Amino acid sequence: MNLEEKQLKSEYLYKGKIINLRRDEALLPNGTTALREVVEHPGGVCVAALTDKNEVLMVKQFRYPYSEVILEIPAGKRDHKDENPLECGIRELKEETGATAKNLFFLGKLYPSPGYVGEIIWMYGATDLSFGDTCPDEDEFLDVEKIPLETLVEKIMSGEIKDAKTQTAVLKLKYLRDKGEI
Amino acid sequence: MNLEEKQLKSEYLYKGKIINLRRDEALLPNGTTALREVVEHPGGVCVAALTDKNEVLMVKQFRYPYSEVILEIPAGKRDHKDENPLECGIRELKEETGATAKNLFFLGKLYPSPGYVGEIIWMYGATDLSFGDTCPDEDEFLDVEKIPLETLVEKIMSGEIKDAKTQTAVLKLKYLRDKGEI
Repeated sequence: MNLEEKQLKSEYLYKGKIINLRRDEALLPNGTTALREVVEHPGGVCVAALTDKNEVLMVKQFRYPYSEVILEIPAGKRDHKDENPLECGIRELKEETGATAKNLFFLGKLYPSPGYVGEIIWMYGATDLSFGDTCPDEDEFLDVEKIPLETLVEKIMSGEIKDAKTQTAVLKLKYLRDKGEI
Repeated sequence: MNLEEKQLKSEYLYKGKIINLRRDEALLPNGTTALREVVEHPGGVCVAALTDKNEVLMVKQFRYPYSEVILEIPAGKRDHKDENPLECGIRELKEETGATAKNLFFLGKLYPSPGYVGEIIWMYGATDLSFGDTCPDEDEFLDVEKIPLETLVEKIMSGEIKDAKTQTAVLKLKYLRDKGEI
């Protein structure tokens, strides 16, 4: 079956600080049309970093859309849409946790909510860490915590950890660790 | 450390079909203010459904923001923001795959991209399936596939599966299956 939709019209409703909002008209496979709302974002990265004591570096952060403090792995958005994701990951890990990793590996892309969001999150794992000072963005307030991998997986399975990239990247880290690949 | 941000001003820039866009001014913990862009969404559900042959029900769907056909578990948004997530999950599973499950269990909430999106995705697992007809929404075109759980986990680990809810819910299903809990 042909599933493709074609852009017929496109209109920017908002061009903002972090996101843009577009409203398009799309041609569907059956010849009818539909409205498609699209949130554009420059893309982001996250890093699931494992210490030599098998702990994962986590940041506790207030997330405004949920009015809630949640636990996440270090992450951030790209400065511009051509920034190299790996370089962005190295920077965000350092800024938020003070850590530098000798060993960084790709854990795949994440599409947060593909019905209406165009953001890509590049996920990385990291081991062989050394620590220096943190330097978060000026409008960013966070606490750093180290949580044992097994405890964190339990928190993910129990529903305590809600962030999508954190659940995915940490479960991948656990899978690789169980297989002896990291 | 106090991490909380307080809403000072709030303005709707767009009230749409699926999403709303708000631009707020927030008071930060250090007394300064920052702009917060928030995408509101009624919330959604997804269902990782396992057949008695250990296959996961998947749908292949064109996702307009990425101009790409991707593989996902069945999912959908709530009809309104008070709809019971479990009932929504039962409906979406039936509509998209024709399946009805005797055993449904909660796999936790997912926050897709908590910096600017307020959507909650309730994740469910399902077993003991029986099959009838599908009835997708009129502007929804999709192909249903069954993929063995182990093959799907490999596709997730290799980066082939990009959807956030699918990666998370299937890795949780795999964890529970390996533990003998489902």
